[in-house]
Amino acid sequence: MSTVVRKLRETVCRLHEELVRYNLVAWTAGNVSGRVPGEDLFVIKPSGVSYDELTPESIVVCDLDGELVEGELSPSSDTAAHAYVYRAMPHVGGVVHTHSTYASAWAARGEAIPCVLTAMADEFGGEIPVGPFALIGGDDIGKGVVATLENHRSPAVLMRNHGVFSIGRDARAAVKAAVMCEDVARTVHVARQLGEPLPIAQADIDSLYDRYQNVYGQRSPR
Amino acid sequence: MSTVVRKLRETVCRLHEELVRYNLVAWTAGNVSGRVPGEDLFVIKPSGVSYDELTPESIVVCDLDGELVEGELSPSSDTAAHAYVYRAMPHVGGVVHTHSTYASAWAARGEAIPCVLTAMADEFGGEIPVGPFALIGGDDIGKGVVATLENHRSPAVLMRNHGVFSIGRDARAAVKAAVMCEDVARTVHVARQLGEPLPIAQADIDSLYDRYQNVYGQRSPR
Amino acid sequence: MSTVVRKLRETVCRLHEELVRYNLVAWTAGNVSGRVPGEDLFVIKPSGVSYDELTPESIVVCDLDGELVEGELSPSSDTAAHAYVYRAMPHVGGVVHTHSTYASAWAARGEAIPCVLTAMADEFGGEIPVGPFALIGGDDIGKGVVATLENHRSPAVLMRNHGVFSIGRDARAAVKAAVMCEDVARTVHVARQLGEPLPIAQADIDSLYDRYQNVYGQRSPR
Amino acid sequence: MSTVVRKLRETVCRLHEELVRYNLVAWTAGNVSGRVPGEDLFVIKPSGVSYDELTPESIVVCDLDGELVEGELSPSSDTAAHAYVYRAMPHVGGVVHTHSTYASAWAARGEAIPCVLTAMADEFGGEIPVGPFALIGGDDIGKGVVATLENHRSPAVLMRNHGVFSIGRDARAAVKAAVMCEDVARTVHVARQLGEPLPIAQADIDSLYDRYQNVYGQRSPR
Repeated sequence: MSTVVRKLRETVCRLHEELVRYNLVAWTAGNVSGRVPGEDLFVIKPSGVSYDELTPESIVVCDLDGELVEGELSPSSDTAAHAYVYRAMPHVGGVVHTHSTYASAWAARGEAIPCVLTAMADEFGGEIPVGPFALIGGDDIGKGVVATLENHRSPAVLMRNHGVFSIGRDARAAVKAAVMCEDVARTVHVARQLGEPLPIAQADIDSLYDRYQNVYGQRSPR
Repeated sequence: MSTVVRKLRETVCRLHEELVRYNLVAWTAGNVSGRVPGEDLFVIKPSGVSYDELTPESIVVCDLDGELVEGELSPSSDTAAHAYVYRAMPHVGGVVHTHSTYASAWAARGEAIPCVLTAMADEFGGEIPVGPFALIGGDDIGKGVVATLENHRSPAVLMRNHGVFSIGRDARAAVKAAVMCEDVARTVHVARQLGEPLPIAQADIDSLYDRYQNVYGQRSPR
Repeated sequence: MSTVVRKLRETVCRLHEELVRYNLVAWTAGNVSGRVPGEDLFVIKPSGVSYDELTPESIVVCDLDGELVEGELSPSSDTAAHAYVYRAMPHVGGVVHTHSTYASAWAARGEAIPCVLTAMADEFGGEIPVGPFALIGGDDIGKGVVATLENHRSPAVLMRNHGVFSIGRDARAAVKAAVMCEDVARTVHVARQLGEPLPIAQADIDSLYDRYQNVYGQRSPR
Repeated sequence: MSTVVRKLRETVCRLHEELVRYNLVAWTAGNVSGRVPGEDLFVIKPSGVSYDELTPESIVVCDLDGELVEGELSPSSDTAAHAYVYRAMPHVGGVVHTHSTYASAWAARGEAIPCVLTAMADEFGGEIPVGPFALIGGDDIGKGVVATLENHRSPAVLMRNHGVFSIGRDARAAVKAAVMCEDVARTVHVARQLGEPLPIAQADIDSLYDRYQNVYGQRSPR
């Protein structure tokens, strides 16, 4: 196993702790994957393993058809969806799937989250869109994720009656998108419980998005 | 005390930590039991003991009439209900009872949770049903649990004005059902606060349920 | 300082951790006191000290007029209310005050929590009542607490626009009442968000209350 | 680096843990700053650094124009707003910014939080007001914060479609205001979900505010 794969397994293993910390997952219902740079491979959580028991060694390696290449355990039952995204979107280096409560509630109604918070404009550049209903087991979920996100600024999609898929340039960025998706899903839900949130002008959304993508954070990658 | 019983006490003691971790219980209001394989016995939490103080030794052993067979402390005040389930449902190896917030709120209205999430179709195979109002102290709660669950895919029942009982092939599976029951009770509640969730077609529910029960997770039991 | 007072300070100090664990308090807004058995004294949290910094030694001793008898720090600004309860209700051995979210929300509307959960019948024997609006600084809060609770089964009262006071035979029982008050305040709130909870017949409430007060838990005091 | 600055960096670093503990922040979205006493300088969180990685050494020092004076990392992207507050309000020694859920929900609707809790009267002396919509990147946010707070008892302002800015005599007081702002935003939200909270008479609000600002806590500063 190459050093790159070993380190990526460690990173992806540790990133699952963020799903737990931010209450995005119950039991084993959520997974993170990361593309192996320069290879047609990605690493992903094994199926049905609890977050407490997850170790870097238990993270499995798959090819872009979702077939197991290395690892003792069966890959996540969502592996086909992750694989489809990596095949279709070469700039994506990380994918996350959760059933986080507030985002999944918007998904159960099939309703996009409107962009009424500056933090949403920053991270998502507009609304968080809804993808189609799709059954697990083939490429339908992956196709729905890609069809929704490829023409969208948002790195997260609410899959109807299901949950969230988020993408990023690496696994950490995809986890950040999943965390921020639930955060704004909750805040906009709470806002709407007692009335209508005020809209943000499109020009202001564009300006916030542009600035955040290009100025925020430290110059060196974190 | 046999090795089997000792190990089961450890397992059941530790599983109570999951009730705490997932915020399913306040103070001492929730309990886990597990059937001793091949014997007419089960182990269960003692009554009124806080989760911090729970040790494998404090877990008590009862027969299927709910009578104390081994242990220093009085068994849970819900012991009669657990015992009734073990007597009536031979395939059940674990029972959990909680007053978890969102599930109990559906129970207070006497309303079943509709199956509008793929995760619900996976774990519950349809709606989570409501059982009758029943007083503690005799077999009424146990009868209500069994009458509701014996003709149902769902491993969890919302007992009216009371809380949740869940079952499983072992104690861990029953705890998982209790955790997932609260998770979907919360998500569907949140979804319905701002409108009507979209339905999932019965054929899709059947397909998801079948797949999850037969394909998900690792081949070896976890 | 007597051994009894030293142990009571330890107990009351540690019980504040339960307020934190169950999310009943923000910053320093909540306090526990306990009567010194057989003496006209009680111990209580010092004012404005964070829960992390609380030590048994920092817990102060007051007489039943709320005057500081022993301790380096000023007593809680709610000391007069605690003292009034101890003077008026000789069977009370512990008092707790919090601004816990859901209970305080009922209090802000001046609305009693209806008894629609068996766990409420067990612990509170009926609804959780509302006490009057009262300003801090004299005996008004204490009078309102006592006037409301002295003719009531409930060990907790929702003080209008303010928060919760709970009582018990000792400090631990009062903390349990505060924890259960917030738990049922939340569950009944959530239930009512989507419709009307079903009522429980008065005879069933009476039966549940009687059983819980006399049968639940272990025979020896815990 | 002076001892004063070193200690302030430690204090401000540690205060970020309170933002995490009280769930006021997701990922890196929230920051604390503190004025260096007697100098035209303040210390603030670096941009895009996670709370786990924050160390006293990573906290940066800026002048009152928001320019970096000392430190390896880029200052928070909210630095201009903090700097504007320090320039305009000489009595302010600490500033906090968060997107805490319930406060941001009120901000998304552009609605002030009415003073219907005695704890709000204590800490805020009345309603928590709304400030204007303002884009990040210049002095607009700072101007909006100052224009709203300079004629107000409240140490916190809900910036429209954005989040909370709070101020205090030092960084700890500003963090307390941010914590209490979210706490009352949540409680009043929950109260209003099921009806209208009862008002508190202005004279009572005045009396509570006066007492809390002058009597609460220990005589020595904490």
